[in-house]
Amino acid sequence: MDKYKGNSPVVLKPKSTDEVSKIIAYCYKKRIAVVPQGGNTGLVGGGVPVYDELVLNTEGMNQVRDFDDVSGILTTDAGCILEVLSNYLAPKGYMMPLDLGAKGSCHIGGNVSTNAGGLRLLRYGSLHGSVLGIEAVLPDEHGTVISVNMPGGGGAGPLRKDNTGYDLKQLFIGAEGTLGIVTGVSILTPRLPSAVNVAVLSVPDFNSVKTVFKETRAQLGEILSAFEFWDQEGLDLVLDHTGAKSPFETAPEGGRAFYVLIETSGSNKDHDDEKLGGLLEKLLEEGICADGTLAQDETQAANLWSLRESLPEAAGKLGKVYKFDVSVPLSEYYSLVEETRARFVENGMAEDGTIKTTVGYGHIGDSNLHINIVAKEYNERTESAIEPWIYEAVAKRNGSISAEHGLGVMKPNHVHYSKTEPAIALMQQLRRVFDPRGILNPGKYLPPSEHLPEEGQEKVK
Amino acid sequence: MDKYKGNSPVVLKPKSTDEVSKIIAYCYKKRIAVVPQGGNTGLVGGGVPVYDELVLNTEGMNQVRDFDDVSGILTTDAGCILEVLSNYLAPKGYMMPLDLGAKGSCHIGGNVSTNAGGLRLLRYGSLHGSVLGIEAVLPDEHGTVISVNMPGGGGAGPLRKDNTGYDLKQLFIGAEGTLGIVTGVSILTPRLPSAVNVAVLSVPDFNSVKTVFKETRAQLGEILSAFEFWDQEGLDLVLDHTGAKSPFETAPEGGRAFYVLIETSGSNKDHDDEKLGGLLEKLLEEGICADGTLAQDETQAANLWSLRESLPEAAGKLGKVYKFDVSVPLSEYYSLVEETRARFVENGMAEDGTIKTTVGYGHIGDSNLHINIVAKEYNERTESAIEPWIYEAVAKRNGSISAEHGLGVMKPNHVHYSKTEPAIALMQQLRRVFDPRGILNPGKYLPPSEHLPEEGQEKVK
Repeated sequence: MDKYKGNSPVVLKPKSTDEVSKIIAYCYKKRIAVVPQGGNTGLVGGGVPVYDELVLNTEGMNQVRDFDDVSGILTTDAGCILEVLSNYLAPKGYMMPLDLGAKGSCHIGGNVSTNAGGLRLLRYGSLHGSVLGIEAVLPDEHGTVISVNMPGGGGAGPLRKDNTGYDLKQLFIGAEGTLGIVTGVSILTPRLPSAVNVAVLSVPDFNSVKTVFKETRAQLGEILSAFEFWDQEGLDLVLDHTGAKSPFETAPEGGRAFYVLIETSGSNKDHDDEKLGGLLEKLLEEGICADGTLAQDETQAANLWSLRESLPEAAGKLGKVYKFDVSVPLSEYYSLVEETRARFVENGMAEDGTIKTTVGYGHIGDSNLHINIVAKEYNERTESAIEPWIYEAVAKRNGSISAEHGLGVMKPNHVHYSKTEPAIALMQQLRRVFDPRGILNPGKYLPPSEHLPEEGQEKVK
Repeated sequence: MDKYKGNSPVVLKPKSTDEVSKIIAYCYKKRIAVVPQGGNTGLVGGGVPVYDELVLNTEGMNQVRDFDDVSGILTTDAGCILEVLSNYLAPKGYMMPLDLGAKGSCHIGGNVSTNAGGLRLLRYGSLHGSVLGIEAVLPDEHGTVISVNMPGGGGAGPLRKDNTGYDLKQLFIGAEGTLGIVTGVSILTPRLPSAVNVAVLSVPDFNSVKTVFKETRAQLGEILSAFEFWDQEGLDLVLDHTGAKSPFETAPEGGRAFYVLIETSGSNKDHDDEKLGGLLEKLLEEGICADGTLAQDETQAANLWSLRESLPEAAGKLGKVYKFDVSVPLSEYYSLVEETRARFVENGMAEDGTIKTTVGYGHIGDSNLHINIVAKEYNERTESAIEPWIYEAVAKRNGSISAEHGLGVMKPNHVHYSKTEPAIALMQQLRRVFDPRGILNPGKYLPPSEHLPEEGQEKVK
């Protein structure tokens, strides 16, 4: 996505928390705006300067600080790359609790600041559960280093249970660098599974996707680690643009089907094979799924995963992509894709080639839906046909207009589709408490506040 | 524990969020202090009035609002009793993600407000991960109802992924009612396991407890649901005061051993039996554990659990109990119990019968240690021998002085043992944002702030 281009005269790459503190204290004094930046893989422009902000990039802070192989608690600098951390943990028998497409470049500090979700949230939960400690630099006159449950930071270290006051670290998770610069993270890592299985199924309609999901949760229980979904348009797109082979022997009845990928991760290969085998047998016997394929080795598993993972890339090859990352309750999930397509048919944009295809895929287990609208080009007419209509359609379903990508520069004025007025007002007040001079990511994340006074004035009640 | 006795002239039991809102708006206007109260099972006096505060009890708000049997998301009033919710879910194939001794009386709103941990946090994670939505009444002039990811509350409903702004609900989790009155909760519930196994092992020393824990995580992986620990003093106490029979055939060598309880929860009884059997065989063969017993049915499982669960009650029968609920990194975990005992020997309080016994038990998987000091009586001499010494000993180990019981009226002035000055200062500022007139739980939770202005005055910078 080349939607956001930075224009900053200065990029700083501090090597330590102390250096970050000095930079921030200086910026506070001089009222210089700052954009914290990690691996710069975000999709909503959160890490990109929009005016002439100073860019503070954390790539120079990339050391593992500590790992405890009894508790599985890892403590690292914010600039460590996710995949590097995974590779560090694997020989020790542990893994990172999150995995996403950008793993080769994204930083753990950015993951935490954007509350990254990804492929395995279904199993290992969100960062609000697995992050145990955060070190951050606050935008005040001293560039105060605040250490919440970090080793050596004073007070309690990283612990699974610590009920001494408000859990401040939770606020930094998903704050997109607006409350402080995250410089260090402690995170609970799960055991690396010794057995992984992958299967892909074809089912006739979206209702069957839900049936399969419910049955899968019941039968696979604790070993289910991913439940992914894509539609016929998605499969066609991938097969056309990547040269991949269809994993199915038969074409779907009526030319259309829905696809799910099931991954299990467990500690005993035989047990997992038996559980998954039993599930697939039942689904085929009862006619819930029409066709299916089970990976026989790691290469086949990777090939099945790539059907799902190469979707965004395939969309980019076909045209210019409007990407939407939303959460929608499962009862209304796929109707959003259908309604979007119907809209393009109605307004003639499907017929005249303005819209090439509309693809739905996502993480069923998290109600997270990615809609990729592939257009001939980025232009105002197309954009105005989609927005704000699609946000309204999500809000009507009590969904979230940003499931995992965040707000950045793209959506500060759209927050109200997913959050109420009193909630947004509270967020603005909290931001002011942490960042009284408004130097962190100005103009991003939240709408401008009409009701908040300038620093030093009386609060409006 | 009869340590905290209330003295309030007024107890209100509203039946709806709207009634709570009206009460709070009135209290705001008249500057009347309010103590929110759930099942009143807390151990640090958080729900007890200390001056003449109005008590707002949520027991009249006890309806399940919604349950979705595909996603497993449950939405309830704050006053629902934890066990009632468990019983509601069981026939549907789901369970509450938390379990604790007080389940028969405690309210889900209180669980959330105190960030209750309990016995199965190891498996299902903390409430920061499983609570998906909160409805709360804010202490402002309108008694504003803030709804974050609740069905029907406006904006996005309960979703596993929603990155639209600061995750405000996280602040209410563990805030002990100081930011608002929690009136409703949405929570993600896991599948009820179809197979549960329980084993109790005896090991010669605390180091072996850690070895067994590491081995158990590696071999049982995804089916491990509890890993509990108690010491010889704990076992002796329970056997003496409950009439329970020792689960072991042989007495420990040298008269002393350490005990662990391992629970598995899974979806396939045969698989779980095989995994647990394999683990026990290995631990016995390699001489890591000396003795062990595996429950053959539900009654035996309940009996093994009761060895652990009746510990607090047994301590209460022997004398007056000083209870400490701390988190300590595993490397320093048991040394805290030993140091406590050594202190009583040094100052003669063991010999003269002032201290009858000191017991250590807890949730190894969460680094959570309960120390019960059983004394002849509650008095100042005994208390001053223990406090603040024990808090200093925890702080020295970078532990937490309150793992799960919270702060309440007992520990507002002890927060600094586990949190740094800048963190406490930020907490005080946040509290002021939510509760500008300081009407919720005054004098509790945090130390009084010297640096914060009265409402309407300029903020001190």
